[in-house]
Amino acid sequence: MHIKDLGEFGLIRRLAAGERRSEAVIKGVGDDAAVLAVNPASRLLVTGDLMVDGTHFLRDKISGFDLGYKLMAVNLSDIAAMAGTPRFAVVFLGIPDDLSVEAVEEIYRGMRALAERYEVSIVGGDTVRSPSLTLGITLLGEGDPDRTILRSGARPDDLLAVTGTLGRSAAGLAVALGLVAAEGESALRVLVAHNRPQPLIEEGSRLGSLEGVHAMIDISDGLASEVGHICEESGVGAVVLGDEVPIDEDTRKIGEMIGKTPLEMALFGGEDYELLFAVAPECWDTVRNELESIGTRAAVVGRINDKAGEIVLESGGTTSKLTPGGFQHF
Amino acid sequence: MHIKDLGEFGLIRRLAAGERRSEAVIKGVGDDAAVLAVNPASRLLVTGDLMVDGTHFLRDKISGFDLGYKLMAVNLSDIAAMAGTPRFAVVFLGIPDDLSVEAVEEIYRGMRALAERYEVSIVGGDTVRSPSLTLGITLLGEGDPDRTILRSGARPDDLLAVTGTLGRSAAGLAVALGLVAAEGESALRVLVAHNRPQPLIEEGSRLGSLEGVHAMIDISDGLASEVGHICEESGVGAVVLGDEVPIDEDTRKIGEMIGKTPLEMALFGGEDYELLFAVAPECWDTVRNELESIGTRAAVVGRINDKAGEIVLESGGTTSKLTPGGFQHF
Repeated sequence: MHIKDLGEFGLIRRLAAGERRSEAVIKGVGDDAAVLAVNPASRLLVTGDLMVDGTHFLRDKISGFDLGYKLMAVNLSDIAAMAGTPRFAVVFLGIPDDLSVEAVEEIYRGMRALAERYEVSIVGGDTVRSPSLTLGITLLGEGDPDRTILRSGARPDDLLAVTGTLGRSAAGLAVALGLVAAEGESALRVLVAHNRPQPLIEEGSRLGSLEGVHAMIDISDGLASEVGHICEESGVGAVVLGDEVPIDEDTRKIGEMIGKTPLEMALFGGEDYELLFAVAPECWDTVRNELESIGTRAAVVGRINDKAGEIVLESGGTTSKLTPGGFQHF
Repeated sequence: MHIKDLGEFGLIRRLAAGERRSEAVIKGVGDDAAVLAVNPASRLLVTGDLMVDGTHFLRDKISGFDLGYKLMAVNLSDIAAMAGTPRFAVVFLGIPDDLSVEAVEEIYRGMRALAERYEVSIVGGDTVRSPSLTLGITLLGEGDPDRTILRSGARPDDLLAVTGTLGRSAAGLAVALGLVAAEGESALRVLVAHNRPQPLIEEGSRLGSLEGVHAMIDISDGLASEVGHICEESGVGAVVLGDEVPIDEDTRKIGEMIGKTPLEMALFGGEDYELLFAVAPECWDTVRNELESIGTRAAVVGRINDKAGEIVLESGGTTSKLTPGGFQHF
């Protein structure tokens, strides 16, 4: 069987099937990070990402610094989505023969810039020869046993909310790939959003400490995909309010230049690393105010219901079925 | 600067330089595994290995099962060398387009066969497209704060001892690559030693619980290299007694066929994943008996002295300077 017939998630599900779980594994495959009980007082959170030249990035389109920075950010974002505190990183480097020591150091500097900001220690790893530049990080974090937020806790009537604005990274990718002749400040801003995403550690931690936040995930594959993950893991359905999705001017402008509506950019763009969370309606005001107190805006973009697996997009007066790949009008 | 001018260890040292250490990092880069204090009662041990087609294995020379098995074994062996208990694994797979789902499952089955034997749970990871088959594992283990054995504890007059016999994996590699026309049971036995090394978890744990075991490492790069690591980290020197190094008949026979002396196979062959340890002379009998009680033979192969960085090989009445790359008669 070809892997493309199963897809990445299908393959992972198939490989993980039948895994015998120790009692210490509170949550294994299927969330932003694994949740492990190694002692009663805290949870060990474990996440990992692998990036390969040609699949996840193009070596000549991104600086080594940004590459290292981004991989660290992506992993930190997974810990943020569990309301955890990042602690230790393990770094894997597969290095082609034509890469200089200085280029490797540049990648490492990017990783470390972000690691140091969040007091993460790089404690080990492996450095090997590889035909394609390959970078991996395993990130270990710590969580509070009572405040670790999974994808699986969303309940009917919860509001779905996101931090920041969506689609910016997709706009940045279009600029990075030279798909648009965008210049000036807009182009620069979305490029930075794409190359140096900011992990929302503080936001995740605050959300974990507040009442009524039932489920959380970071937006790595686009809003449509992430709403799907929350619904699948929680056994619920959702209505996404397309007209409420926060999208900024830069993204609208560049989206238009590449023939995409703002909503397409936000729903399917991915790599924004904002947080999507399900929150009890009566707690929403407190949650929004808490996030605003640290300078982060949040917006309601939908509502959870009990129609398991049914994800509906309401936008501009029409209603569609929403999947990670697109939407179809009913 | 070219990476080959620095070497793997040189590059790692350069990248790790200036790493700001949190107090929780008891030992970072530079041992078999990192040792982290996440709670007072135990140590978290973290190790990782990355294997790439063409660098560490040849896809058409090893079965998927053996490949997965071996990568898991190599990581387990690092935890064994810290006297730790393996607990959780994170698995990275970089998969070329022409690899079938069944082939990926076969690799996974190999990993899991060994993981289950040692009650290790695979808790997450990442599966991505890659031009070259790439496999990585981060293994988390647990250690006793008072019984975690580092490379750095060797003291002058300690005996250097190894478990099992050395050079078998190098003999197996020669068979796997078709360098020798070896057939029959010898060839099969060394091939198994090469493809399915046995991590010495029980042995490592016993050694950690006994008095007088001051330093330990697993033999991944050959005895010469590992003695060097212990001496460097401990700030001591050593005499290696070449005539005492345990080498079996299979290895002698196949070594001869590829023009290598038994001692060359043992000193420079690597991938045996036996344990090398430094033990106080007065404790040696107890240690040897304890290992024999679980069916594992151990032999003294040298002695630690205070001549920091000086590693001497005594063999057949001659004395040489020993380096990971070879030996030179004085």
